[in-house]
Amino acid sequence: MNSFGTLFRIHIFGESHGPSVGFTIDGVPAGLTISVEDFFSDLERRKGGMHKGTTPRKETDLPIFMSGVFNEKTTGFPLTILFENKNIRSEDYDKQRAIPRPGHADWVAHQKFGGYEDYRGSGHFSARLTTGIVAAGVIAKKLIPNISINAKVVSIGGEKDIELGLQKAVDANDSVGGIIECKVNGLPVGLGEPYFNSLESMLSHIIFSIPAVRGIEFGTGFAAASMHGSEHNDSIETADGKTKTNHAGGIIGGISNGNELVLKIAVKPASSTPKAQESLNWQTNQIENFSIEGRHDLCVALRAPVIVEAATAIVLADCMMLEQLIPRVLKNTI
Amino acid sequence: MNSFGTLFRIHIFGESHGPSVGFTIDGVPAGLTISVEDFFSDLERRKGGMHKGTTPRKETDLPIFMSGVFNEKTTGFPLTILFENKNIRSEDYDKQRAIPRPGHADWVAHQKFGGYEDYRGSGHFSARLTTGIVAAGVIAKKLIPNISINAKVVSIGGEKDIELGLQKAVDANDSVGGIIECKVNGLPVGLGEPYFNSLESMLSHIIFSIPAVRGIEFGTGFAAASMHGSEHNDSIETADGKTKTNHAGGIIGGISNGNELVLKIAVKPASSTPKAQESLNWQTNQIENFSIEGRHDLCVALRAPVIVEAATAIVLADCMMLEQLIPRVLKNTI
Amino acid sequence: MNSFGTLFRIHIFGESHGPSVGFTIDGVPAGLTISVEDFFSDLERRKGGMHKGTTPRKETDLPIFMSGVFNEKTTGFPLTILFENKNIRSEDYDKQRAIPRPGHADWVAHQKFGGYEDYRGSGHFSARLTTGIVAAGVIAKKLIPNISINAKVVSIGGEKDIELGLQKAVDANDSVGGIIECKVNGLPVGLGEPYFNSLESMLSHIIFSIPAVRGIEFGTGFAAASMHGSEHNDSIETADGKTKTNHAGGIIGGISNGNELVLKIAVKPASSTPKAQESLNWQTNQIENFSIEGRHDLCVALRAPVIVEAATAIVLADCMMLEQLIPRVLKNTI
Amino acid sequence: MNSFGTLFRIHIFGESHGPSVGFTIDGVPAGLTISVEDFFSDLERRKGGMHKGTTPRKETDLPIFMSGVFNEKTTGFPLTILFENKNIRSEDYDKQRAIPRPGHADWVAHQKFGGYEDYRGSGHFSARLTTGIVAAGVIAKKLIPNISINAKVVSIGGEKDIELGLQKAVDANDSVGGIIECKVNGLPVGLGEPYFNSLESMLSHIIFSIPAVRGIEFGTGFAAASMHGSEHNDSIETADGKTKTNHAGGIIGGISNGNELVLKIAVKPASSTPKAQESLNWQTNQIENFSIEGRHDLCVALRAPVIVEAATAIVLADCMMLEQLIPRVLKNTI
Repeated sequence: MNSFGTLFRIHIFGESHGPSVGFTIDGVPAGLTISVEDFFSDLERRKGGMHKGTTPRKETDLPIFMSGVFNEKTTGFPLTILFENKNIRSEDYDKQRAIPRPGHADWVAHQKFGGYEDYRGSGHFSARLTTGIVAAGVIAKKLIPNISINAKVVSIGGEKDIELGLQKAVDANDSVGGIIECKVNGLPVGLGEPYFNSLESMLSHIIFSIPAVRGIEFGTGFAAASMHGSEHNDSIETADGKTKTNHAGGIIGGISNGNELVLKIAVKPASSTPKAQESLNWQTNQIENFSIEGRHDLCVALRAPVIVEAATAIVLADCMMLEQLIPRVLKNTI
Repeated sequence: MNSFGTLFRIHIFGESHGPSVGFTIDGVPAGLTISVEDFFSDLERRKGGMHKGTTPRKETDLPIFMSGVFNEKTTGFPLTILFENKNIRSEDYDKQRAIPRPGHADWVAHQKFGGYEDYRGSGHFSARLTTGIVAAGVIAKKLIPNISINAKVVSIGGEKDIELGLQKAVDANDSVGGIIECKVNGLPVGLGEPYFNSLESMLSHIIFSIPAVRGIEFGTGFAAASMHGSEHNDSIETADGKTKTNHAGGIIGGISNGNELVLKIAVKPASSTPKAQESLNWQTNQIENFSIEGRHDLCVALRAPVIVEAATAIVLADCMMLEQLIPRVLKNTI
Repeated sequence: MNSFGTLFRIHIFGESHGPSVGFTIDGVPAGLTISVEDFFSDLERRKGGMHKGTTPRKETDLPIFMSGVFNEKTTGFPLTILFENKNIRSEDYDKQRAIPRPGHADWVAHQKFGGYEDYRGSGHFSARLTTGIVAAGVIAKKLIPNISINAKVVSIGGEKDIELGLQKAVDANDSVGGIIECKVNGLPVGLGEPYFNSLESMLSHIIFSIPAVRGIEFGTGFAAASMHGSEHNDSIETADGKTKTNHAGGIIGGISNGNELVLKIAVKPASSTPKAQESLNWQTNQIENFSIEGRHDLCVALRAPVIVEAATAIVLADCMMLEQLIPRVLKNTI
Repeated sequence: MNSFGTLFRIHIFGESHGPSVGFTIDGVPAGLTISVEDFFSDLERRKGGMHKGTTPRKETDLPIFMSGVFNEKTTGFPLTILFENKNIRSEDYDKQRAIPRPGHADWVAHQKFGGYEDYRGSGHFSARLTTGIVAAGVIAKKLIPNISINAKVVSIGGEKDIELGLQKAVDANDSVGGIIECKVNGLPVGLGEPYFNSLESMLSHIIFSIPAVRGIEFGTGFAAASMHGSEHNDSIETADGKTKTNHAGGIIGGISNGNELVLKIAVKPASSTPKAQESLNWQTNQIENFSIEGRHDLCVALRAPVIVEAATAIVLADCMMLEQLIPRVLKNTI
């Protein structure tokens, strides 16, 4: 199923080389001012072509409002946005279909969907789908203007000097992974629930929907496993819940505690490395050596921060609605 | 909301010091043989009192079937199991209510639920609720007999020699964190979907529902962020999809690829350390020094493996149903 | 699946002759005052034994709070209530198992659940399950104190003189159907949505969950099919939306319009008529003549009004929450 | 929320005079052959312009596949279909905005969505949205080729001679209601569940999503309320569950019993009658006399049968998937 959320509910669809990718959001309040320009900045961050580690494929990425917007305001009804796929070179993919690319979903998709999957450019599995998540994130961010969400790459290939990590990959003619950190400020106390609707559950759910994510941690995260309780516990110091330390990363019992929300995400190296690789050709049943051509990113982590922000904003907008902190009709509010 | 799953759907309820904790599962096929004895082994693993790092509180933990079982078979209707809370010493908690325990949900719960929360023994936030998750996991495991799920503690307080890590905590009179590894074998190819129903999304969602979990990673996980693509990619070597390496941890594109599923989980040190701590008394608005008394675990990670197994089994049973790999009526099948 | 609702979400479970029936509600706000006495009046209306047309089976119907209540207030966590089944005479049912009772689910249940269904007293299909719906309705009604919901029987066996219709059935030694009318006043404008969350969709969904319901209509209902538009249309006469007529029954475009909500429900005659009937014995494959013994209602419509009210209240409480008209914490509010 | 279904899940969007209406279906199995021609017949039945009682507005109604179809087969991923709105005359609606049309959602929409609703041609409330439901129904019907679903108008304005009922309305220069009957054959035993997922609950839920529906009944329906049990009960006569009579209309205990499924639906007269009407102008607060111009149907019931069939097919396809009667990949199956 391709839906996520309770009151702010996103449905995504599309394939990399089909006519379009897009999404519908159900639950957007009426009265939110919205224009195509609102999307440019975040979509630009998601696009390739800026960094040496990202792909030169350039889509116009112009959001086309198909429903839910009238007179530059949201109407309260389902909001559907399309992005047409224009810059397509499908022939890159056809010739190697029977050789599943290592790290890609080619083989599992073929098994699961019986050969009917659209395999061009990874089809529905393509990171192209994250265009919709980023655009939904733009709307979510507009709904929570007092909450700031900032994600950035904090290491590439194990190097905190990110240019260095990237240069090493370029020199090695190989793709490389990275770590994203996302910090959220301005959160009210009380978002999330214990157990299945914990903030961590909802955030990790959507963040693992982003292709190439392999791990997530909140606050001190994996390092907490090496700590003692007296070190890790955050003592409350003020009546509004501010703590001396923030090992918890802003979430206790699944619920925001008013401190900075901090999460880190591990992104694997792009599966489409330029290096020669081996795979089993499922027609010949022979191991083959091959190289992936076409347009690809060396480091998909470079494009991920804005996607992580969007995913985070989608969860937080939903939580804010569940706590009745966003009205159903926005009258001169936002 | 306290529900999880699509076709195998669990609803949990209860408080640590209320009359009971329990759960309902909707979607259990008819005809599964079930008895109270089936639950003893896993419930025993979850219970305290066995390790030096776990609490001496002992509940009988006898599952009481309230619905959905007839003649020792499931009926196909909602299956409700209760665990009565018998061994309760609520007075331990009442006297310190206005001093929120660091690392616990006391303060956020008070803010969010306006003082109406049952604060005794952490109430609904208590790890006592995981009794229901473990018991639901027993049923899930019975539905997927050809899939083996094994979780264990792989480090305590940063020590791979677990006894050593635990002894250090005992010596320091402090609680301590740990890391759990869970491995799954016998998975068919094709469980999960790209995006919001990715295996990682569903697994992380439920696993972050377990109190004290702070991080999760699949396969190589965070280490992938330091790797190059040619290192990290797993080449398929056989027609059934077995790969030379398993950095992906058995999941590609959100879908099981038939290799071993591997995930690791970071568990924070128990918030209830015996050490003296500080917190802000919300009645006096004074910082107070206090020690937590009562029955508590030094290392909650020791109790977590069986909970992680249960959470994993719940997701996998649901995925197996979504793929029509578990019939709706089990006739001499299981 | 045995769940209903979005924010006020009910899960029901149990069997007629198992240990209990009950339900969990997720989404009850914290701070609602609640006591066992609150349930007596509506549960009494649902129970048999009062009218000549209802069964003499008497359950104590004492709600047992298993979770979600603390110090006579709701906590904001899942609220589970059980009703023990005490007054059981299962032997009535065992002897005739292979002869499916006409009008009952015996045969379809046997087909669908492969013989594993609890067949005693209709098992999970029993109207005994509506105890949980009525009790959930009590809570829902408490959440919407300014909305009055009143359902009553308006005809029995086609007779508007209800005593007459019932007496005819008694004289004929046969069961009989009836029509329930439910009227709701005090509804705010704006509950419901067009299409899948229309008020009619949600109300009909839950009302057809009540055993024996065969039809539902809103406002003028089926009679509207014989009318012209100029007759049927309700003209708005006042600024708050009151209409000259109320053929729409208070709902336009799926949304409450502030006028009285009116719905009618057709209830079939109780399937367990005392009259001799025929059915195919699935063991012998012979048509058999038999009579149903045991405790049964001549006219289940007599017990239905309080169930219809409860179902209506459950939908309306959910809609009120969706419109943010019920706070998440009730501080001296209700 | 604009979603419906569990495994076969439809999301609708669009407005009458926006760029398009459309829908996404999640859960379509891979491998279903699909072409634009498949949709023509049912879309033609839904369109106006054929009968004297229907509107002359003509949309091309050409389905545009935006995702989920590749090489004329479904891929197993979300299937999105758009219908562009081309034949739009919005000026018809603008001039009368402040005068809510009786029987239409103008006033409630204005209240609920704060004036941000797209009011042109009823916006999201328009029956234009049912284009998506009909098209989704085409796909659903293709998934259940052995089940035949046939709906037809059985009376207009109370007249079983339908031409007569319609002529009376034409003569009266007024709109008129009607009754639709839908019969389903070839259903397997066992679709549906007791309570909230009863076949009646699911069918009524989606059917009340169709604009202008005011009532629904199954089998004998409202007439059952006047019957005795010995009359109404259907005796099973054959081992495959065929009954002597079919008062139940093919559903017992919420579950299909293998007999013909029969339901009837009351459709109100079109709210847009050509006759002069009164309404309160919300700007002037004066009652005004006005006539509705523009293109409208005298009898929307004439367009409803194919929508009712589609709604029915959507529910049945979902139920068939829940019973594992439709495979996840269709290999030469359909």
